[in-house]
Amino acid sequence: MPNPQLNAKGELTHLLAIDGLPREVLTHILDTAASFLGLADREVKKVPLLRGKSVFNLFFENSTRTRTTFEIAAKRLSADVINLDITRSSTAKGETLLDTIDNLCAMHADMFVVRHAASGAPYLIAEHLRRMGHDDIHVVNAGDGRHAHPTQGLLDMYTIRHFKRNFESLTVAIIGDILHSRVARSDICALTTLGAKEVRAIGPETLLPANLASMGVKVYHDMEKGLRDCDVIIMLRLQNERMNGALLPSASEYFRHYGLTPGKLALAKPEAIVMHPGPMNRGVEIDSAVADGAQAVILDQVAFGIAVRMAVMSILNGKK
Amino acid sequence: MPNPQLNAKGELTHLLAIDGLPREVLTHILDTAASFLGLADREVKKVPLLRGKSVFNLFFENSTRTRTTFEIAAKRLSADVINLDITRSSTAKGETLLDTIDNLCAMHADMFVVRHAASGAPYLIAEHLRRMGHDDIHVVNAGDGRHAHPTQGLLDMYTIRHFKRNFESLTVAIIGDILHSRVARSDICALTTLGAKEVRAIGPETLLPANLASMGVKVYHDMEKGLRDCDVIIMLRLQNERMNGALLPSASEYFRHYGLTPGKLALAKPEAIVMHPGPMNRGVEIDSAVADGAQAVILDQVAFGIAVRMAVMSILNGKK
Amino acid sequence: MPNPQLNAKGELTHLLAIDGLPREVLTHILDTAASFLGLADREVKKVPLLRGKSVFNLFFENSTRTRTTFEIAAKRLSADVINLDITRSSTAKGETLLDTIDNLCAMHADMFVVRHAASGAPYLIAEHLRRMGHDDIHVVNAGDGRHAHPTQGLLDMYTIRHFKRNFESLTVAIIGDILHSRVARSDICALTTLGAKEVRAIGPETLLPANLASMGVKVYHDMEKGLRDCDVIIMLRLQNERMNGALLPSASEYFRHYGLTPGKLALAKPEAIVMHPGPMNRGVEIDSAVADGAQAVILDQVAFGIAVRMAVMSILNGKK
Repeated sequence: MPNPQLNAKGELTHLLAIDGLPREVLTHILDTAASFLGLADREVKKVPLLRGKSVFNLFFENSTRTRTTFEIAAKRLSADVINLDITRSSTAKGETLLDTIDNLCAMHADMFVVRHAASGAPYLIAEHLRRMGHDDIHVVNAGDGRHAHPTQGLLDMYTIRHFKRNFESLTVAIIGDILHSRVARSDICALTTLGAKEVRAIGPETLLPANLASMGVKVYHDMEKGLRDCDVIIMLRLQNERMNGALLPSASEYFRHYGLTPGKLALAKPEAIVMHPGPMNRGVEIDSAVADGAQAVILDQVAFGIAVRMAVMSILNGKK
Repeated sequence: MPNPQLNAKGELTHLLAIDGLPREVLTHILDTAASFLGLADREVKKVPLLRGKSVFNLFFENSTRTRTTFEIAAKRLSADVINLDITRSSTAKGETLLDTIDNLCAMHADMFVVRHAASGAPYLIAEHLRRMGHDDIHVVNAGDGRHAHPTQGLLDMYTIRHFKRNFESLTVAIIGDILHSRVARSDICALTTLGAKEVRAIGPETLLPANLASMGVKVYHDMEKGLRDCDVIIMLRLQNERMNGALLPSASEYFRHYGLTPGKLALAKPEAIVMHPGPMNRGVEIDSAVADGAQAVILDQVAFGIAVRMAVMSILNGKK
Repeated sequence: MPNPQLNAKGELTHLLAIDGLPREVLTHILDTAASFLGLADREVKKVPLLRGKSVFNLFFENSTRTRTTFEIAAKRLSADVINLDITRSSTAKGETLLDTIDNLCAMHADMFVVRHAASGAPYLIAEHLRRMGHDDIHVVNAGDGRHAHPTQGLLDMYTIRHFKRNFESLTVAIIGDILHSRVARSDICALTTLGAKEVRAIGPETLLPANLASMGVKVYHDMEKGLRDCDVIIMLRLQNERMNGALLPSASEYFRHYGLTPGKLALAKPEAIVMHPGPMNRGVEIDSAVADGAQAVILDQVAFGIAVRMAVMSILNGKK
């Protein structure tokens, strides 16, 4: 089966997941993002690349933070942005998801940014667009269920490349609730494609999926061992709903074992960088001294995230 | 009493209902809409006709879908759009509707797009503007109670004209809950003004108003008879709240009698078109085979709806 | 301690409160607002002063009306406006306020318009920006707790200056719930700085703060005495939550004593103006005959409010 994200010429037409995207496509996105980075220092932080285009934020699951990053990215490309509060919209009146999509297509949408609690929902939309012949309407997955969050994966790659130059020599540790994390899945996939030397997963057994080894990931349950000689540390957010005793004894117990403290961080390479997709739970998965410390690049990730999203939107619209 | 929608020169100054608008005004709106239709295929889908104008979406009743169509139309005209979530605003703090309007006028609003559960609310606002001397501020009724939904009526006329050219030879059937439908009321009025040969209403007795005959509409309770020789079929949405046994036995019983199936559709003329204002209840008032079939023009209606709303906004602002 | 609102050169860098701002700064804002006032009559009501700037409306406390005025002001300056519904955002997921701010700074925000139930929240943000070296990101207080609402204070001053020319000869009465009013606090401060002859506070003892005399304000519990010879009357909104008997016997009892009726208004100077920050409780603190009467300038306040907010935003961005 051909990758539904690429058109017949091999060009990116939807961004649904990192899986199956060739290294050149990822690199092209990162290079394009680099070209947008300087924009933030200009007097007018806008380019007219998407002027007159209609970008719809379809957030079936609430996420003000992620929606805001896409809204800013689209506005800096001069697009018109329409935020749809889906929980209050026609789907609540019994209209099907695809009827809603058909309607927005008829209004001449150019792009859908989709966040959905169900894994695969953006694929369903992309496949429907293909079937309806809407080759000029593009889908960006802004997080679907436990499956993927590809722009987060890409901005993480941008951050690593920015600080570490190339991937071949890097040991990267991803720490925490990997089982429920679409970020972890996207990161592992991107790191593998970009040729990282070693990818490690560190966490309690209950929060690690069974198939990590088959993905080429080394599994650790012990921070002391897992962090040794790491170049990059990616902390994951511990969802509040995991902290009520079902999978974990308690937040403080979790912090004692897997929270990143200055002491544990010292086990990694001295120049290791610390990343986090946000929002952080200080004192749960990360100590404030680390979050605000010299090795943290967490706010750089946010800044790069805008540039990466601008790059994705431009490329999908054939503008870069 | 003069029509409150027209100024002293007979120009459209508010769009409150189809009732009382001369045929030339309706035709002018449809012709203007036609001029906007090509815009959707252009690289930049915008015109600067309303640049610097402030359009306020005042939705006292929630309708993401309708609000979105007006927001898109206004943005493609380059207006600034401000969405007011009225249920959370000052009216909830005890301010009267007209105090809210006075405030927005003082902020130099140019247009109010009003959706309200109470029939007549947009008239109240238009009358207040006249009394306060705000001749340059315009009201568009985006649906008031059971009364009117004139832009839906206009886009329906645009759709019929697009596919059937002229109205004089047409038999149009409107099917379903006409009693509670502002769309039906606007459609009947527009079809009469534009000279349709015959307008039919089909539905159970409990869902048809008593005054249809006086409006020149032929009443049918039987789909088989009502659909015969129709050129245009307008299905209405069955509101969920009607399906709980008060006025109707059940949704499936309704579908059996009044749901549009391929079998029933075959009774109309072979080239008849099927319309629906959306959102559809598939399997309640319309069968999926019809909704997605070759005779359905439901998504065309949506596309024309943007052009019609752009036309209305431009004309009200004296731009066409 | 230097005023946190001014930079080393004495220029306005945040607008947090009227307190401590020199008269020249206030006058400069009012003069700048005057230059924006004519814009409303132009065909295109926009200037490109803030083109490409990202203005974030951070409303931790809901206020559709105030948010709308800032949104309009920013859009007429051609800024990109992003409304954050904070109650639904990351702070609800356990992220701290300052982490949220850090994230938005990383997205290259240019300005935060902050409404918060806690007094001092905008100061906390401004101080954090200073500590982080973000000298080019500006904070506007859009109302914090019972503390300050400086743009309301400024628009009130604009209104008084517009109708009365100079402050030196004026007697101004502020009437109602001064204890809980951030508007009253900002007005008293501004009137004192601009040199009003006499500032009076009129209200029941339970709704007046103890320190009024030390602020140079004359206290009255009796409308008949307090209104005598006033040039300007500023009515305050009586919050609904005050009317349940805790501090006041009843709304009608309040109206009898402190509601502004035509009879009481006649005690002031014949050319006195009547102001109100809105939204009004007609029949509680103000009689409709006064609210809609010839001496009311309440809607002028709203119009001036847009110009004043445009002035503040432009000055903070170094554009005026």
